[in-house]
Amino acid sequence: MQEKEPTERRAVVLLSGGLDSATTLACARTEFQCYALAFDYGQRHRIELDAARRVAQDMGAIEFRIVRLDLRAIGGSALTDSNIAVPESHAIGRDIPVTYVPFRNAHFLAVAVSWAEVLGARKVYIGAVEQDSSGYPDCRPAYYEAFNRVVRAGTREGRIEIVTPLIAMRKAEIVRLGLELGAPFDLTWSCYGGQDQACGVCDSCVLRLRAFRAAGTKDPIPYAEKQIVEC
Amino acid sequence: MQEKEPTERRAVVLLSGGLDSATTLACARTEFQCYALAFDYGQRHRIELDAARRVAQDMGAIEFRIVRLDLRAIGGSALTDSNIAVPESHAIGRDIPVTYVPFRNAHFLAVAVSWAEVLGARKVYIGAVEQDSSGYPDCRPAYYEAFNRVVRAGTREGRIEIVTPLIAMRKAEIVRLGLELGAPFDLTWSCYGGQDQACGVCDSCVLRLRAFRAAGTKDPIPYAEKQIVEC
Repeated sequence: MQEKEPTERRAVVLLSGGLDSATTLACARTEFQCYALAFDYGQRHRIELDAARRVAQDMGAIEFRIVRLDLRAIGGSALTDSNIAVPESHAIGRDIPVTYVPFRNAHFLAVAVSWAEVLGARKVYIGAVEQDSSGYPDCRPAYYEAFNRVVRAGTREGRIEIVTPLIAMRKAEIVRLGLELGAPFDLTWSCYGGQDQACGVCDSCVLRLRAFRAAGTKDPIPYAEKQIVEC
Repeated sequence: MQEKEPTERRAVVLLSGGLDSATTLACARTEFQCYALAFDYGQRHRIELDAARRVAQDMGAIEFRIVRLDLRAIGGSALTDSNIAVPESHAIGRDIPVTYVPFRNAHFLAVAVSWAEVLGARKVYIGAVEQDSSGYPDCRPAYYEAFNRVVRAGTREGRIEIVTPLIAMRKAEIVRLGLELGAPFDLTWSCYGGQDQACGVCDSCVLRLRAFRAAGTKDPIPYAEKQIVEC
């Protein structure tokens, strides 16, 4: 009979169903027993959560939980407020995009840290990426440094740490790292649209396609053929 | 026709239905137009939310919103996990009590800051009290200083500030301040029990009764007579 693993070997890993969080889980599992956490925050499409579940199962997560967040009660973003249209544009600028949910990562981290405390885990992994994050203010290293101070001040023993292994990486590096560590990119979903196949033209698809191209490999998921962007 | 108030005069105020948050709202409304925010996080008793709504209405809040938080999905506290009994004890020690929801205030603050950003408000008021908080690690000044760094790093313009007007006060001072500013204590609810009348014996009732006594005044709410504690 195996001995029970000490809780210090546990990590909570935030999963969105996309490339970055799949690669983050691939990193975390090299050292930790992973407890995967996804959020139902009124995304328009359940397809992201289905992708997160498949990724968690494929990568041997001990548990996969979906926590509901009532972000629609607040509004202010194209991804949760059905009165704001999601832009179909290739212009990925430095301005904060309309898809911004104000202060969203703080909600995710709060739940993740709470769960880590209940589990006795010491690490919370999140796949935040500064470079390709289109200016979301809560994807910057300074934000996570500050949040780690909050965690130290606001938890029982102050020993939980938020870890952002991808924060300084470019998307192509993330693709290469994920492939190296066995992340199942064929199970991931990045498209802002909610069709059976990724659209290939929304900002998120464009970033993804560029990343695979820059990494010198082919994205394993199918795209709606007539819309494939080669850039 | 009146001119529209600039959004800088708006404040989000967290309301729990108890003494501290009613006094906090009373402070905030001396300077700001108040948007009251309460949470349905699986408390055992809706009576707290009813109290919060009545307090918000009585004090002229512009809006009152209840946001659902799925803290039961995480567990770990007597207030949300029905497998843990709430203690009926007068021993208010320095240890972290079983009623602790790990990292709970971070969830509340995340929602409040998101709403403040949507409203264009500059302040988020929360009635955290260090002295009487039974050792909750997220009721200390260092926690709010750290959280304010996160807010500055993680919001569009970084100008929202969390304000804790009661943090250094004793409960009796809060009662006196609330009375001075017209907080409707008769509408508030503090008891951990969920009966029609407050029990008078749970930790929260004991703290409340002591506070009114120390302030030299009578608590305006009725208690289950046989259980009144005079301490």
